[in-house]
Amino acid sequence: MPEKQTFKQTLQMKRNYMGRACKLHFESAPLKIVQASRQYMYDDTGNEYLDCIGNISHVGHCHPHVTRAGQDQLGTLVASTGFLNEKSVEYAKRMIETLPEKLCVCFMVNSGSEANDLAVRLCRSYTGHHDVMVIDHAFHGNVSVIADLSPFKWQKLGMEKKDWVHVVPFPDTYRGKYREDSINPGLLYANEARNIIQSAHEKKRKIAAFLCEPMMVTAGVVEYPPHFLSQTFRAVHEAGGLCIIDEVNTGLGRTGDHFWAFQSQDVVPDILVVGKPLGNGFPMAMVITSKEIADNLSDYTNTFGGNPVACSIGLAVLDVIQNEKLQSSAKSVGKCFKDGLKAIAPNHPMIGDVRGRGMIVGIEIVTDKESRKPAPEAADLLAYKLKENKIIIANEGQDKNVMLITPPLCFTCDNARHVVQAIDSALAEIEKGASEAGLNQSSFGENRMDIPLNILSMPSTSGYSSEESDFDSEHPSKRARYEEVD
Amino acid sequence: MPEKQTFKQTLQMKRNYMGRACKLHFESAPLKIVQASRQYMYDDTGNEYLDCIGNISHVGHCHPHVTRAGQDQLGTLVASTGFLNEKSVEYAKRMIETLPEKLCVCFMVNSGSEANDLAVRLCRSYTGHHDVMVIDHAFHGNVSVIADLSPFKWQKLGMEKKDWVHVVPFPDTYRGKYREDSINPGLLYANEARNIIQSAHEKKRKIAAFLCEPMMVTAGVVEYPPHFLSQTFRAVHEAGGLCIIDEVNTGLGRTGDHFWAFQSQDVVPDILVVGKPLGNGFPMAMVITSKEIADNLSDYTNTFGGNPVACSIGLAVLDVIQNEKLQSSAKSVGKCFKDGLKAIAPNHPMIGDVRGRGMIVGIEIVTDKESRKPAPEAADLLAYKLKENKIIIANEGQDKNVMLITPPLCFTCDNARHVVQAIDSALAEIEKGASEAGLNQSSFGENRMDIPLNILSMPSTSGYSSEESDFDSEHPSKRARYEEVD
Repeated sequence: MPEKQTFKQTLQMKRNYMGRACKLHFESAPLKIVQASRQYMYDDTGNEYLDCIGNISHVGHCHPHVTRAGQDQLGTLVASTGFLNEKSVEYAKRMIETLPEKLCVCFMVNSGSEANDLAVRLCRSYTGHHDVMVIDHAFHGNVSVIADLSPFKWQKLGMEKKDWVHVVPFPDTYRGKYREDSINPGLLYANEARNIIQSAHEKKRKIAAFLCEPMMVTAGVVEYPPHFLSQTFRAVHEAGGLCIIDEVNTGLGRTGDHFWAFQSQDVVPDILVVGKPLGNGFPMAMVITSKEIADNLSDYTNTFGGNPVACSIGLAVLDVIQNEKLQSSAKSVGKCFKDGLKAIAPNHPMIGDVRGRGMIVGIEIVTDKESRKPAPEAADLLAYKLKENKIIIANEGQDKNVMLITPPLCFTCDNARHVVQAIDSALAEIEKGASEAGLNQSSFGENRMDIPLNILSMPSTSGYSSEESDFDSEHPSKRARYEEVD
Repeated sequence: MPEKQTFKQTLQMKRNYMGRACKLHFESAPLKIVQASRQYMYDDTGNEYLDCIGNISHVGHCHPHVTRAGQDQLGTLVASTGFLNEKSVEYAKRMIETLPEKLCVCFMVNSGSEANDLAVRLCRSYTGHHDVMVIDHAFHGNVSVIADLSPFKWQKLGMEKKDWVHVVPFPDTYRGKYREDSINPGLLYANEARNIIQSAHEKKRKIAAFLCEPMMVTAGVVEYPPHFLSQTFRAVHEAGGLCIIDEVNTGLGRTGDHFWAFQSQDVVPDILVVGKPLGNGFPMAMVITSKEIADNLSDYTNTFGGNPVACSIGLAVLDVIQNEKLQSSAKSVGKCFKDGLKAIAPNHPMIGDVRGRGMIVGIEIVTDKESRKPAPEAADLLAYKLKENKIIIANEGQDKNVMLITPPLCFTCDNARHVVQAIDSALAEIEKGASEAGLNQSSFGENRMDIPLNILSMPSTSGYSSEESDFDSEHPSKRARYEEVD
């Protein structure tokens, strides 16, 4: 169907009608996406972008098998809350079969946030305790209780830590308290967790749950050092708490070695949460736990959770992962990516680290390899430059300096090589620009206004008409772009 | 597509793999629904049921215009978080145009629970206060904070009231503290609310929000007496709090007189929440508020919220409501329903009250008109008997004694007459059965075991094979059914 609005109209309507808190990628020059297929997205002028961040579209945008399953079910039965439904129980069975025996009962909900919230409710109800421990810089979702459990979020919003929330130091061996040169940093971080539980107990507080990802994704692609998770789980269990693994970003084969990322970690969670990849974009999520923990909740209604469209789509996604061997592809393409990035890293003073597992790859952009100081402005610039090269990538992490690569799993080694090459060139330009502007590399990241503004004011990729711009122009980078077209 | 499982297999898989807390309608003889169209649902043996509870399927199950919109979008673009999207802004605009000027900015989320949670977050963030006032017996959703704000739920689960939650007495003039014979019961209930705020203040607590439905639906179809809402809103505003209207059950023309139920109440909320009807079964919900309140939140990400499939479907639902004049139909068919029920009420000692607005109709089932004592077991029985007549209806309300009628809006006057007739016969049988069993009507509702069990053990409607039953049989009504087939 042809688009009815100009780019400018769509942007203006977004600004008029949607909460400003709902941010866009490339805020100063956003994209209007109208179509997507496999690992590609298309904007309103027909440009094709390679999608390196579309982890929601797990098996590829609009995969025909998944699309057909959804379309068929939409025409047959959509809402059947409170009735037996074949698709729903079949999907529950298929999901549970991928997991250790202990995780055998599920609840179907609509988002990772709802799922993490329910997981916490289950822990509180089962243990009779109230407090929850999380890892610093973690992000687990947007509903009230889960926002309180997402230091990534509350630190950003200037919210205060709640007294029932306990925060373990970020177990990052690249920039954290204990680094790769420590002897057994995993145990050192786990000891920190143990001390936190201890000091909570001294204040007469009791831990209901430890909520964590199997590796930290949004916080900057950080894999835990060996023994951290198993030792922390042990401490939590000894304190009478339960352990929740949030696989919203990592589940369904993305990490390559296993179907679930926790399986690389020598632990089995008491509760598993999964969201994003399940529905290839369809809103759905799941909580899977033991019968003992599940039965503790006597009544739970979720209007849309487990609807037959979601479950039909979910089944089709599982089919595709299996039929197209996407888990092993995630492993080999991920290796291709990391190998390529590691090969170019020595030539780039700003690549501090390359890490990740399977199709979750992170690149630390730093002012220089020695100081390891985050360079978020350079990372931002790199994302914009790659966008000019028709590659969509995001800079994430607590310091916004980690390029996060989490594409649909149909991504190929050719795609990976193409992205590595583009990063190689774009970063060389940025490094050259920084050095030509006479900037001391170690102060590069401190103030975006130090960067020549013309780097930010790239030509429009969106082809909207040159009518007078009525967007507000308080942001210099925005002004640069819109002045150029007007 | 033919069903692959027998009824028995589906039921067994539900029991094996899904949390027991996820209850089924007609728990002792559930239905396996395989297809639905307009106001009809079809079970696995081809029986057609008239759906009187399918409010989620607002414009009719699998409405072709809505189905097509969803199918087209599923094949074009599903996930586009962080990018401009035409469908999303168009939908925001269309929704906002139905509302008073003040409500002009929206957030798109995935469920009524998420929406109510965000509304509370917005109030807390805007006012700097923490406490929330709700109405007794209200139900607003299932995420932690919202479950705490749903007395209907926490009373049922035996949870304790949180100290930040304040509960206004149920403003029910049929069975509440002030009844229809009071002079201005609305003001009397509003004064109760004012006193609650006052006593919170005395304890140094401050009200961030008052969260309520525009009429109480799940709690038993209770319309507020005049002035209750406007006077309570005034008291909340004077205390520096904001007022949230939860239209999850009432919005989009269902109440007939207006598009939004709050418009009958002489109030404009600070925040409006809507969920269920928006997507005709697709998981979506929305928070709509003023720019001032919205802008107070600086960052909000919702992975699936406002996805193009949801918004395309949402637009199609709005089209259908308009094209098929469903709001005025809700008014006339609702009147047909209430008139019919009021006409049979005098013949039935167990019909205590008939009430509601538009296509939200409630029938109070009582032991007798004088005592007004709730008769939940009779209501339960009535639901089962209507199911035998191929009519799906639920008994809801705090005492589970209110027959709740909230069908898809394509429901006709003929459908309504058919249901009234079926209620007339079924209730006569129940009343006769009760009197023949020598039960004193006033004690009828007290113990289900007093009811002859054969009334509960109805012939199977699901046609599963007569293999040995391995379902647990601790519940007598369950045993009755399965023994009969074995």
